[in-house]
Amino acid sequence: MAVNSWLAEPIKGLLLDITGVLYESGEGFGTAIPGSVEAVKRLRETGIPVRFVTNETCATRAELIKKLHHHSFSVSEGDVFSPVPAVISLLKERGLVPHLLVHPAIECEFSGLVAGNPTCVVMGDADEAFSFANMNVAFRALKAMEDPKLFALGFGKYYKHKGQLQLDVGAFATALEFACDIKSEIVGKPSPLFFDAALSDIGITAKEAVMIGDDIVSDVGGAQKCGIRGVLVRTGKYTRSCENHPTVTPHFIANNLSEAVDLIIEAQSKNIHQV
Amino acid sequence: MAVNSWLAEPIKGLLLDITGVLYESGEGFGTAIPGSVEAVKRLRETGIPVRFVTNETCATRAELIKKLHHHSFSVSEGDVFSPVPAVISLLKERGLVPHLLVHPAIECEFSGLVAGNPTCVVMGDADEAFSFANMNVAFRALKAMEDPKLFALGFGKYYKHKGQLQLDVGAFATALEFACDIKSEIVGKPSPLFFDAALSDIGITAKEAVMIGDDIVSDVGGAQKCGIRGVLVRTGKYTRSCENHPTVTPHFIANNLSEAVDLIIEAQSKNIHQV
Repeated sequence: MAVNSWLAEPIKGLLLDITGVLYESGEGFGTAIPGSVEAVKRLRETGIPVRFVTNETCATRAELIKKLHHHSFSVSEGDVFSPVPAVISLLKERGLVPHLLVHPAIECEFSGLVAGNPTCVVMGDADEAFSFANMNVAFRALKAMEDPKLFALGFGKYYKHKGQLQLDVGAFATALEFACDIKSEIVGKPSPLFFDAALSDIGITAKEAVMIGDDIVSDVGGAQKCGIRGVLVRTGKYTRSCENHPTVTPHFIANNLSEAVDLIIEAQSKNIHQV
Repeated sequence: MAVNSWLAEPIKGLLLDITGVLYESGEGFGTAIPGSVEAVKRLRETGIPVRFVTNETCATRAELIKKLHHHSFSVSEGDVFSPVPAVISLLKERGLVPHLLVHPAIECEFSGLVAGNPTCVVMGDADEAFSFANMNVAFRALKAMEDPKLFALGFGKYYKHKGQLQLDVGAFATALEFACDIKSEIVGKPSPLFFDAALSDIGITAKEAVMIGDDIVSDVGGAQKCGIRGVLVRTGKYTRSCENHPTVTPHFIANNLSEAVDLIIEAQSKNIHQV
């Protein structure tokens, strides 16, 4: 594959990961990644549709938007696809009562749903709340269920937090899967349902889209499994070893969002002139 | 298989699990399981060789013996096979420097080995020390290694502690395996090397032995994979679901150690009379 052959087919919409692509997480609002605010602005100006697909479950969607606006990112709540609203719809549809192993900041989003004996466990990136005690309470809740169900809000291995790699929900969900002999149902990336929701909101097919993220498995591999082109950025949780991943080869590796966006805009303008 | 066909072949030695078979863990010394002290005594009297194969890593072997003696169990240190001495030999043989994620009570056993940059992680049942912070430190230690190695002292899913089920080392080791894309090397049950060490100490073959334990996978399944007959007891971490385990069918399920020992002694006395 020629280096930029991924740009040959028209790009009618972009899916962007948030943490590690727009900004690096950290104390308070974290730090915007240099060039990312301007890159999103350029996308808005060129009119290429953008949706933000995130597995962020350490903050409510409103708080996430507040954080993005603090950095002057041009993002509205309706553009953001995150696992919490998706799992809440699913719990309501199926009439399930969740036991929550999530970040304290998002517990409020489940108010009204947590009543009576739990019939499933919902795990997000609980961060410090992934204590030994909380893991055991979730484990015992699953063991007490006749038909134990575990919903994982994303399935990341790790991410960068305050400058250090930190274990993500996928690792702790795997621990409970092993202990209870069950498989979790993933709500978020890399679930195809999650990518599909964002694509259909734009009104494009997988082939017309590009996903840009810092997670080689959930972002790049997940998108590619759906037929979406997957671009990895060298920001966020990126490490050199991602470039030789045993199962996922990105369509392109960009130094950052800004570089990827420049290439896309340039290619699109050529495509338009060719038509 | 007739109910007691497992007794047809001669039994020249017994391997017994400790926690959940001899005593239930709990505050202080825990509680001896009714009939177990007398069962071990009867085995000693009949002269059937016994070794104790445990994945216990919350106490030094000396502390474990002290606990067993408190309950009047006839057990000496040389009869106990536990993962810590086994992993220490292995680390010395291979010249590895461990990062420890173990119970604070056994850290002292590794003194002298923890010097310089770690080249492997050793995980035992760390209990409360399986904190989010400690899991992350072990994870980062593995990510920093050129050739990451993870040794799990046993690989249990869970066990009973102070009357409640609690996650065991296997669950947390699975989390690190997933996050780092590695497989751990198990030192303890159900590793065949571990059963073999106990068998060769008695001087018998796998076919001549019976393993009695409360862990359907590590004790019963592990022993059976080596060709040892596996008996499950309805004490310790046993739950009803163990009787319909998807992959392991015990040779026999006894209400407790005492019942299993009575059957074995009775069958052996018949075998002797037949000879």
